[in-house]
Amino acid sequence: MGKVIIIVSMSLDGFVAGPNPRVAAPLGDGGERLHEWMFAAAPHPFDAAVAGSRFTVETVGAVVMGRTTFDCGIGEWGDDGTFRTPCFVVTHRPGEPVVKGPTTFTFVTDGVDAAVALARRAAGERDVCVMGADVGAQALRAGLVDELQIHVAPVILGAGRTLFGELGTRLPLVPSRVLDSPYATHIRYRVAS
Amino acid sequence: MGKVIIIVSMSLDGFVAGPNPRVAAPLGDGGERLHEWMFAAAPHPFDAAVAGSRFTVETVGAVVMGRTTFDCGIGEWGDDGTFRTPCFVVTHRPGEPVVKGPTTFTFVTDGVDAAVALARRAAGERDVCVMGADVGAQALRAGLVDELQIHVAPVILGAGRTLFGELGTRLPLVPSRVLDSPYATHIRYRVAS
Repeated sequence: MGKVIIIVSMSLDGFVAGPNPRVAAPLGDGGERLHEWMFAAAPHPFDAAVAGSRFTVETVGAVVMGRTTFDCGIGEWGDDGTFRTPCFVVTHRPGEPVVKGPTTFTFVTDGVDAAVALARRAAGERDVCVMGADVGAQALRAGLVDELQIHVAPVILGAGRTLFGELGTRLPLVPSRVLDSPYATHIRYRVAS
Repeated sequence: MGKVIIIVSMSLDGFVAGPNPRVAAPLGDGGERLHEWMFAAAPHPFDAAVAGSRFTVETVGAVVMGRTTFDCGIGEWGDDGTFRTPCFVVTHRPGEPVVKGPTTFTFVTDGVDAAVALARRAAGERDVCVMGADVGAQALRAGLVDELQIHVAPVILGAGRTLFGELGTRLPLVPSRVLDSPYATHIRYRVAS
């Protein structure tokens, strides 16, 4: 069975978005710096390698995301929906699936556990990626996460939305790979069980 | 003139101490993991190099710390006071200097700006190290910091004391060196001006 992996870019002070996130600026004020490593004009080879391997269909079999991530992203993800795998959107608002070419977004209204279970089934031997602050924290708290891929961007945002916040749970981690560039320090951790 | 450097170990979720820090356990519940990289039985060469270079009198000419750091540390720092350079303790409580061999701890009651100014003068061409959560954040906010040396320990603490908290200021950083071991990812940043 594949792993459940949280993938997220965050500032050094732990914010996954600056203040005032909105559809026009989903990363909030100043938050574009968080994703600079993906969009640099002259990307560093490590950034390119990390970006290229994050959501390949060879390794990722399904995606779980929060409603905010979906709402902010769907306009940007193009006709193929970007992920090309089943995506499960954790939300309180039921809705018909949204199909973008090879990508289907299914709305799941009974919580992150149910979404991860559906995603695991869809992914088979491949990994499940969890995107988004709230859903990521919920999945961590529920003990559903095997791995973290954290892209630490070189910025202090000073305010905004935290990924982990006061998670209330202590989790030892085991670093398994670090790659760094001028745009981010990419740290991969295994969640110690 | 030397640089003003914040040196701190923090968890992946940005805590510099777990819940309930106290003199007997200054890093709070679970917080000992933050300093494991310094005290591992078989230290990784990178950890040893980083630990060995942090407070050498060749490069560090003075230290600024908060009262909590002083109160928690003074019992541990031995007869030579560990730092072997002038140390300035930012506090509301005035007091006579505490002398431990070559290390003198001077209490500064008129704020972090004053403490950093005194430390700069004492350090001359060498660097000033700033230790401790509150004092570090105050110095950052006041624009007094040139460099950050952050040791990211592989743990989610889930609660406790944050270094940066809601700093309220956005600061772009420039990573200048990353060293990683199983015990920590050591990232050095220049504060972009």
